[in-house]
This record gives sequence, structure tokens and C-alpha cells, in this order.
Amino acid sequence: MLSAEPSAVPVLTAADLIADPGAHRVLTGDRPTGPLHLGHYFGTLQNRVRLQDQGVEMFVLVADYQVITDRDLADRLAEHTENLVLDYLAAGLDPERATIFAHSAVPALNQLLLPFLSLVSVAELSRNPTVKDEIAHSSQAAVNGLMFTYPVHQAADILFCKADLVPVGQDQLPHLEVARTVARRFNERYPHADGSAVFPRPRALLSEAPMLLGTDGGKMSKSRGNAVALGADEDETARIIRGARTDADRRITYDPTGRPGVSGLLLLAALCQDRAPETIAEEIGDGGAAVLKRTVIESVNEYFRPLRVRRAELATDRGHLRQVLRAGAERANAIADATLAEVREVMGAI
Amino acid sequence: MLSAEPSAVPVLTAADLIADPGAHRVLTGDRPTGPLHLGHYFGTLQNRVRLQDQGVEMFVLVADYQVITDRDLADRLAEHTENLVLDYLAAGLDPERATIFAHSAVPALNQLLLPFLSLVSVAELSRNPTVKDEIAHSSQAAVNGLMFTYPVHQAADILFCKADLVPVGQDQLPHLEVARTVARRFNERYPHADGSAVFPRPRALLSEAPMLLGTDGGKMSKSRGNAVALGADEDETARIIRGARTDADRRITYDPTGRPGVSGLLLLAALCQDRAPETIAEEIGDGGAAVLKRTVIESVNEYFRPLRVRRAELATDRGHLRQVLRAGAERANAIADATLAEVREVMGAI
Repeated sequence: MLSAEPSAVPVLTAADLIADPGAHRVLTGDRPTGPLHLGHYFGTLQNRVRLQDQGVEMFVLVADYQVITDRDLADRLAEHTENLVLDYLAAGLDPERATIFAHSAVPALNQLLLPFLSLVSVAELSRNPTVKDEIAHSSQAAVNGLMFTYPVHQAADILFCKADLVPVGQDQLPHLEVARTVARRFNERYPHADGSAVFPRPRALLSEAPMLLGTDGGKMSKSRGNAVALGADEDETARIIRGARTDADRRITYDPTGRPGVSGLLLLAALCQDRAPETIAEEIGDGGAAVLKRTVIESVNEYFRPLRVRRAELATDRGHLRQVLRAGAERANAIADATLAEVREVMGAI
Repeated sequence: MLSAEPSAVPVLTAADLIADPGAHRVLTGDRPTGPLHLGHYFGTLQNRVRLQDQGVEMFVLVADYQVITDRDLADRLAEHTENLVLDYLAAGLDPERATIFAHSAVPALNQLLLPFLSLVSVAELSRNPTVKDEIAHSSQAAVNGLMFTYPVHQAADILFCKADLVPVGQDQLPHLEVARTVARRFNERYPHADGSAVFPRPRALLSEAPMLLGTDGGKMSKSRGNAVALGADEDETARIIRGARTDADRRITYDPTGRPGVSGLLLLAALCQDRAPETIAEEIGDGGAAVLKRTVIESVNEYFRPLRVRRAELATDRGHLRQVLRAGAERANAIADATLAEVREVMGAI
């Protein structure tokens, strides 16, 4: 089912894939800015594993080179990258089926930037909401060239492996629109001799997962201390959830607007138990925040126990993590080389 | 001798190099937009051969991927690229000493665009005179992303092989300034552990060659029919020079401002004979345009005879031209890989 098309980008939901999963290739990934937390897990990671298990081909890019855009993480980039792989494998991504690779390890894909940059105007790049925001909040001097051209880099990351589906949040649809525009213009300008297109026009795969807020009611983020890391132990999990902001009403009800704190905790327990948050609220009844938190702590620790056991095992072998990245890079490089050869051929370069 | 520093880019002339030629690496190149002509030869090509013969290490980049910026040459890109190599070899560039390679054959060097783009602001890119011109003459929508980021691409092309000297015309100094800024900021932000710099800050090597105008007094360009191609035969050379615009004064004098047509022809003969244009003018005396043109035709055909013989021989073996490009690409790729490994290391990526 094709849903409404915000920003002219066709949007699919997970249900659409089941018909012919083998016909799709998904490009997804993360910036290696620190350990993944439960918000990442229920927001994207779980869905990736589900897609993989349905037979969709997954490309998972660790955007290590992109983090230089907006922060100074260079010192721990390699460590963060390996830890991301650790979280992926613990969550169930299977390197035999999913291609997990660091962006920095596939330098040649950046050649696509040349034709792609020639296909978008400066006026179009200026319309990017992120760039507009930055200029509005600080100045044009604050926008660097990498930030300004970011949607074109994203187009290269998506199209080098000819991914046709990209899991995104609503806010990333404008970026995907640039990737679609680039693909369309490239295909029009440089068709194959038989008229066929080089690139698919990627579609958005909008997550159906509800958004988890941090324990302080704000955006979940490890650096704010309001998030439980995937790899946290049971005591740390308990400590963070016990510190969650709730309210004084002993009667526990699911009311995301009126009672965001309580409802966020109910939602987390519900996701772990695969039940409705309202049902869990009813069971707790007049137990108050203490019982609610105990329930959530137990649910999280119960649900994530197998993942954490796997993670602890995997963590003892950093060599294996590096080997996964090497194998993924080898495969991604082979695909980049094939795509670039095709691109050079249709463009008439040598 | 360091001359004045327009645009803050230190400028060298050829004379500065003789002291220690082996200590320098030059990056130079051309867009493969058609055959090279006598203006290219006396403007840049002859100087490259001179530098090579002095022992300076030459990297000659055929900017095939860049021509997509502003024209539709895609159809004949490979042919133009090979013909450029033909002109280079005929002129005396030696693939054993100079690395001649097509830009499209070294895809990985474009990875440098990521850190480099992050080191310049949109405001700085907007100050590029070429971009300003284009916006003034048409509109912002007419400037595409490749044109806008062009100085950063040029920085990647120069710095991937750590060239410290770039032969440029006065008009290209602003581009070189961006390359110097990028190198400086990169070195400051990502020094080696021992504090040393990854990149040299390239300096300009300003040509001392006088500029040759076309036979119609305009900018010399093969497509305007006012230029003699390096590979033209003697009859074609004679035909084009005979058609040159001169004046009715039978007395031949060297006066570039007052008599640009006559003086341009004198300059061409002078370059071929390695004598002063005034001396040649005196010899012709009252011979008028007819004698002048005969002199120029003979001088050009005489001077370029050995080059053209070599060119004709080389033209029979297209496989050799491709082999030169392959060998150059192999060497350029090895150097790009080494530089990228160094860049990833100082940036802390894997």
C-alpha cells in the first residue's frame, strides 16, 4: 500500500514488503556517536532485524566520515564504530545476510559526488530545512560545505548500492527527495544504450514504531543520561529507570499527552512485553510510580537479557567486530566498483 | 625568488625551481575538451616538459569528470582523453617520469571531499569569483553544486598527491587560495601524533609565457577556428595562419597594443625561432602581411615538425595511449590510497 506522499517521496510501511522481500535492497545506518540505546532499538534496530529476517537485503552503513560535520568525535571514531557493530550483532543483524560497513572504508563511492553535485543547483541545496535552520539560528558562515551538500552525500550513499528503500523519519524526507531527484536526473541524462536506467529512485520506509522519550521527558540521548544503553547491565538499567520523571497520581493510566512520563514508561514495558500499554496500566492499577518502575525494570531486563548475553560474548572478541567490518567493506567496495564502472560507461568516461 | 603575493598565495616563477627541482611535486592538467593548440603548447605544455626535464616530479591530471560541469562532451570523453595523452607524449612528457592519469580512474581521491568540505564555509564558497560571475550573469539556479564546490574538488586533486606547486594563471589564484586554506585548516585540526602536517600548502607557479591570441585577435580556441592544433598538418597550419587578421601597413613592427594581429603572428614566429619578435619584424621590414605570414607558417611548421612526426607515430597505437593512462592511474591510485590511509589515521577513522 502506498500511503500519502509528503514531499513527493513515496512512502512504504513495513507491511508492504512482505509480498516480495527479495526484490528490495535497504540502505540504512547510524552515525557512530556513542552506544545505541533502547530508543534506537525499538525505533530502528528491531525493524532492521525484522526486514533482514524477511529476506530483504540490508546495507548498514556506519557513517563515520559524516560525524566530522558537526562534532569532534574524531578521537574515538574507530572505537565508536566497533561498538556500533557490537550493538548490531547483539540485536540480531547477521553479517552473513546484512552488509555492515564503515563509510570511510569505501572511499570510491564518493566519486558519485561529482556527477550528482552537477545535477542539483545551489538554490535547491539552499532549500534543505537543516541548512535553512542553521542559517536562521546562526549565520551562513556557520554552514560548512559538507553540511550544505549533505543530501548529495546521502544520495551517493544510497545509490552506490542501488538501494530502493530507505528507512527514514518524517524529518528526513526532504533529504530523500534530493536522492530521488538526483537519480531521476542522472537516469534521464545518462541512460544505458538500451534506454534503461542506472539507478532506482529510492522510496522511504517510514517506521511504524512509536517514539520513545528519555526518562526526563526529553529526546532520548545517552549523553543526557536519560537513556538506557542496549549494553547497560541490569543495575544500571534499574538506576536509570528509577530516576525517571513521573507524577504523584498513584493510579497508573496510559495518557501520552496528559501524563508523558508515566506513559513513556508504560510504552517501554509494553514494547518489551509485546502487549498494549493500557493493559499493563490496568494491571498496575493503584500501584503508583514505584510499581510501574519495578515493572518496567523487570520487563527491560527480561527482554534484553539474551541480547545482553550475546553482546557480552561478542565484546570479548574485538577482532571479530573488525573482521565483520572488513568483510562488509570488501562487499561494499565490490558493489561500488561495479556501480562506478557502469556510471563511467554511461557518462562516456574511460 | 618569491614575487608579490596576490590573493595571499605565494607565487613562484620557473627560475625558482632550478635550485632543488627534486624537492618539488607539481600537479597540473587539462580538461579533455578537444585537441591542444599552439596556445596550450607555449602557454603550459612546453613549461611542463621543461619542469620534467629539470627533475621536478610531474602529476598530469586529465580532468575528465570535471567537464560534465559545464558542457555536454560525455559522448567523446574517452576519445578526447586519449587525444590529450597523445598531445602530451608528442610534446615530450615522458610517462616514465610524469604520472599522467584520468581523474575518473582515481575514484578514491574524492573521499578527501568529505573532510575538505567540512573545512570551508558556504560563505567562503560563495566568494569564488567564477560563482559570483555566474550568479551575476544568470542566477543562483544556474550554479550547480559541482561548480559551487569546484575549488574544494581542486584542493582534493592537488592535495591527494601532496603537490606543493601548481602552475596557474592569475585568474586561478583564488581557487588555489581555497586549497591552501583547506590544507592549513586540515593540518591544524588533524595533526600527526608528532605534530607534523599531513599536507603541504601548495604554491602557485605563474607562467612567464606570453599569452598567444587567436588568429582573429580573440581568445585562442579550436572551436572558434582561430587556433592551430598541435596535431594539424602543414597545409592546415598554412590555411589558418593565412586567414589571420592583420592590417594594411606593409611595414611590419612589433606593437602588441597598436597592432595586435601583426604582433600576435610575430610573437608566434618568435616563440618558434626562440628569438625576439622585434628582430623578426626588422628582417621582414616592408614585406607586408604576406611575407609575415609566410615566415610564421615556415617557423611553425619547422618548429613543430619533430613533434608532429612523433605524434603521427604515436597515433597509430591507441593501445599504448591507454596503457599510459592505466600505468598513470595505477600510480595515482597507490598514492591516493597512501594519503587516504594517513588522513583516516589522523582523523581517527578506521
